Amino acid sequence: SAQSSLTVFGVVDAGISRYSTKSSTYGSAALFGPRTMRQSQTVLSPSGLSSSRLGFRGTEDLGGGLAASFWLEAPLSNDTGGGISNFGRRSTLSLSGPFGELRLGRDYTASFWNDAVFDPMTVNGVGTNLIAVVNSNIAASRALATGGLLNGGLSAGTDSYLRTSNALSYFLPPNLGGFYGQVQYALPENIKVEGASAPAGTGRRGRYAGARAGWSNGAVDVALAYGESTVADTLLNKERIKTVNLGASYDFGWAKLFGELSRVKDVKERPLTAAVSGRYDGALLGLTVPVGPGLIRVSYATVKFDNGSTVPDADARTNKLAVGYVHHLSKRTALYASVARIRIRDGHNNPTVMGVTPLVLSLPAIFPQPGFTTSGGFQPRGAMGYDVGIRHTF
Amino acid sequence: SAQSSLTVFGVVDAGISRYSTKSSTYGSAALFGPRTMRQSQTVLSPSGLSSSRLGFRGTEDLGGGLAASFWLEAPLSNDTGGGISNFGRRSTLSLSGPFGELRLGRDYTASFWNDAVFDPMTVNGVGTNLIAVVNSNIAASRALATGGLLNGGLSAGTDSYLRTSNALSYFLPPNLGGFYGQVQYALPENIKVEGASAPAGTGRRGRYAGARAGWSNGAVDVALAYGESTVADTLLNKERIKTVNLGASYDFGWAKLFGELSRVKDVKERPLTAAVSGRYDGALLGLTVPVGPGLIRVSYATVKFDNGSTVPDADARTNKLAVGYVHHLSKRTALYASVARIRIRDGHNNPTVMGVTPLVLSLPAIFPQPGFTTSGGFQPRGAMGYDVGIRHTF
Amino acid sequence: SAQSSLTVFGVVDAGISRYSTKSSTYGSAALFGPRTMRQSQTVLSPSGLSSSRLGFRGTEDLGGGLAASFWLEAPLSNDTGGGISNFGRRSTLSLSGPFGELRLGRDYTASFWNDAVFDPMTVNGVGTNLIAVVNSNIAASRALATGGLLNGGLSAGTDSYLRTSNALSYFLPPNLGGFYGQVQYALPENIKVEGASAPAGTGRRGRYAGARAGWSNGAVDVALAYGESTVADTLLNKERIKTVNLGASYDFGWAKLFGELSRVKDVKERPLTAAVSGRYDGALLGLTVPVGPGLIRVSYATVKFDNGSTVPDADARTNKLAVGYVHHLSKRTALYASVARIRIRDGHNNPTVMGVTPLVLSLPAIFPQPGFTTSGGFQPRGAMGYDVGIRHTF
Repeated sequence: SAQSSLTVFGVVDAGISRYSTKSSTYGSAALFGPRTMRQSQTVLSPSGLSSSRLGFRGTEDLGGGLAASFWLEAPLSNDTGGGISNFGRRSTLSLSGPFGELRLGRDYTASFWNDAVFDPMTVNGVGTNLIAVVNSNIAASRALATGGLLNGGLSAGTDSYLRTSNALSYFLPPNLGGFYGQVQYALPENIKVEGASAPAGTGRRGRYAGARAGWSNGAVDVALAYGESTVADTLLNKERIKTVNLGASYDFGWAKLFGELSRVKDVKERPLTAAVSGRYDGALLGLTVPVGPGLIRVSYATVKFDNGSTVPDADARTNKLAVGYVHHLSKRTALYASVARIRIRDGHNNPTVMGVTPLVLSLPAIFPQPGFTTSGGFQPRGAMGYDVGIRHTF
Repeated sequence: SAQSSLTVFGVVDAGISRYSTKSSTYGSAALFGPRTMRQSQTVLSPSGLSSSRLGFRGTEDLGGGLAASFWLEAPLSNDTGGGISNFGRRSTLSLSGPFGELRLGRDYTASFWNDAVFDPMTVNGVGTNLIAVVNSNIAASRALATGGLLNGGLSAGTDSYLRTSNALSYFLPPNLGGFYGQVQYALPENIKVEGASAPAGTGRRGRYAGARAGWSNGAVDVALAYGESTVADTLLNKERIKTVNLGASYDFGWAKLFGELSRVKDVKERPLTAAVSGRYDGALLGLTVPVGPGLIRVSYATVKFDNGSTVPDADARTNKLAVGYVHHLSKRTALYASVARIRIRDGHNNPTVMGVTPLVLSLPAIFPQPGFTTSGGFQPRGAMGYDVGIRHTF
Repeated sequence: SAQSSLTVFGVVDAGISRYSTKSSTYGSAALFGPRTMRQSQTVLSPSGLSSSRLGFRGTEDLGGGLAASFWLEAPLSNDTGGGISNFGRRSTLSLSGPFGELRLGRDYTASFWNDAVFDPMTVNGVGTNLIAVVNSNIAASRALATGGLLNGGLSAGTDSYLRTSNALSYFLPPNLGGFYGQVQYALPENIKVEGASAPAGTGRRGRYAGARAGWSNGAVDVALAYGESTVADTLLNKERIKTVNLGASYDFGWAKLFGELSRVKDVKERPLTAAVSGRYDGALLGLTVPVGPGLIRVSYATVKFDNGSTVPDADARTNKLAVGYVHHLSKRTALYASVARIRIRDGHNNPTVMGVTPLVLSLPAIFPQPGFTTSGGFQPRGAMGYDVGIRHTF
């Protein structure tokens, strides 16, 4: 129990946020009654700039370049005192050496990293990378539709998009001239039964496989990632979410430019019915500009949905503009303000993913709630939100 | 992650407690059958002297008199291993400076402080301030009657009496010649919907607003507090619990005298029925006497209930006498023993609040359980209890 | 809050495990259809060598040989991020001195220790002491059959076999020439009701009483323990699980020998029906051999069940062979591999205890699941499992 090897660390982030959304009637419902429905909410919000958390980590030097290390990190909802009931943000044990790092446990997925690293708003608060919000929605809604949230619903049901449990990861060592990379495999852990009259199992449901490779040198950082999450694997219903994304940033010194392209396919293979696969194409362009002890942050993102069917008017599109400012009081403490606006076109198509965020990265949602958008008469049209807060790390 | 700025702290308090209660038949039920019912229970009890807890806190000096600080504190049920699943005791982020302190998050309410500071038994164990027990009962029973416990039921359902989530608090700076004060507002966070056929919302349910001001100088400490908790806010049902209390202590050196007056109104505004507001008037008188490394503690309290209706015999009254001794083995560790006796008059009126403590500050209850008192035949008459234990802080 | 007195400690253990089980038809079912059913599962497993945990403990010297100390220890499921929601592994407050130690709270039972101390596999992973698995099954299945898991289901429902809440323990001081011992009593905490028409209570359900005494000197360690857990105590249904075990080890230097004998009786006293008491007789023989920085571990155990009825063929027997190797990379970090094989005879008798481990010490089970064994057609026959992993303590 050498305490020198243990670090207790965390983030407490609190602010005031306001969210408002607008839905409007469409189709036949638009002929009668009200045209629009507005929702709004003002909250004390955690995690507007960085996700609130409490963690324990440590490293032991084993000699010969070898090291063992652990990382246990719990989410905090410091507005209400919630949290610390699990280490759902990360709980890993690593053995590292000249060969790289072998990491076992619950961790971020390989295919999530680009959504975070190349987002000027670092996937927190109202300005969160739009692709990340849509990906979270896909992960949660498809898991719920195919048998319940994966891994017991930790991390707001976004497994295996944002994080995955039961994972084996390998990371390249850091000294490869700027090249970095990881491969990751998460065990589905379902029981396999053999023998006559064996019950149908859940097969590979919960399995995740992914990889990421990049190059970072001086001002440049560029990375490509691929991931595949199995949400259904029965005889009559196979479904995988396949994600590929490419991100890059260039630091001009006076400003840093960010960009990301992402394609997500929701691939359903069903022998008895026609295959229907949705496709989500996303793009993000961002900028940060340091101003004295502060940082201006801007991002614009768009996601286009193609539902794969042949019915007319079967697509949808969402755009998001986010602007923010972070003022550093010290290395550990910062004040921040962010504002974001979302516009949705044809939001009645796939509102659970394209227009609604019941399970957004940072709750609560800035999009319309399901009740209005799926009742057939209302579709989500847009949303506005802001965060004003303070973030403290320790 | 400068560890110098982080403190891990806590209390582990364990003892043996015995509770016994007496109920008796009243009205027509008193004509037949048994006259009394007794309940008793012997338990290993946490928190007899101080609430068991585990916390993490830290402060960063930001220069110019400014500081950022956080406080995360979890309850512990060390008798059974329960606890640590949330930081429901306190989870706050503060920015402080010459102007005072701005505090965001879950915290004690402004109107609770007097019930604790001016209780010789420091609201723990069988001797807990009677007003605090009644106030906890009001908070829990009115929340349950109007849509469920507030804030997800943390802190045994006593929100927003004892603590409140989503709060913004401002505290005066400490250097005002003994004057101190705070104002506090907790956001209800309910979604507001606008537009035709908008569903009825929960309005300001969960809102808390309060303030406390006092003066402490040498031997004297006196403080006045006011708080208002909204438990219902629909078109046909508006209900607020309004608390005002005044506490004072004077330290003679050989003894310290405590006193508190409290008035709580349960104000129901219903357009279609007559308004019925309950009123609870409480008074406490207490004394502590240092004896070598020990402290004798005595308190007597009474609460009178006026249910606001015109039916005869519509009131109830509860008295409580508590005596205890704390023996300090060190600054951090103490042995203690407390005994308390309660008498209830007309306990069939409002037994949930006046005679029953399913959600007492320190579980389990020393009062009769609901089953006997609300069945129409039994009313709570009295209770006895003691705690013998050891308290260790770290 | 002197931080010198606080230690944050823990274990993170992660590995790959594979479990496979075989069931086969018996009786009339064996005449038709399939003869065998196989189950298998590959998982990322925590706790293959040591139970993953996070804890906080500290001691204060009170002078005069007295000390106060606390111990709060939470389980971790680091494969999925679960855990830390309670201190169910241990949460105690102690006062110790020349007289010994008085310990209050949740702790291991006195009668569990021999199952752990004299198991070469230290009751973790696939090689876990067979007696411990059977005892866990008895505790969980009898609690479920008599009103639900004890103490709210902490510790996988194995209360009061493995641990017990609400306990008062006394330990002899360490300086008695090698003699050691403890007595322990856990309060049932049920409410007692007196008076006419009082509802039937749960009496002493949840009560545990036990003791352990041993002698350890140089190469020898031997200890005897007895424990009694009350799982039912109503007028018509009284049931206690009585455990006695004797363990010993002798360290030859080049090898250490282990042995344990255990008898568990499930005593049911029911006035209206004939008493039926099951009896479980267990024996374990084990060996560890240090090899450089490593340790070879071998154990063989058997448990025989006598269900106490007069029906023919009413018994069952289980054997387990486990072999493993631990390679120490440092004092704190080790690699390990274990393999275990189980054979079950007449597993249709009492499969919940003898052949199935839904609530094994280290989840998931290496035995067949209930669905196949209790359906009347299948009985558990055997199981295989291995663990390969890394264990890090801090």
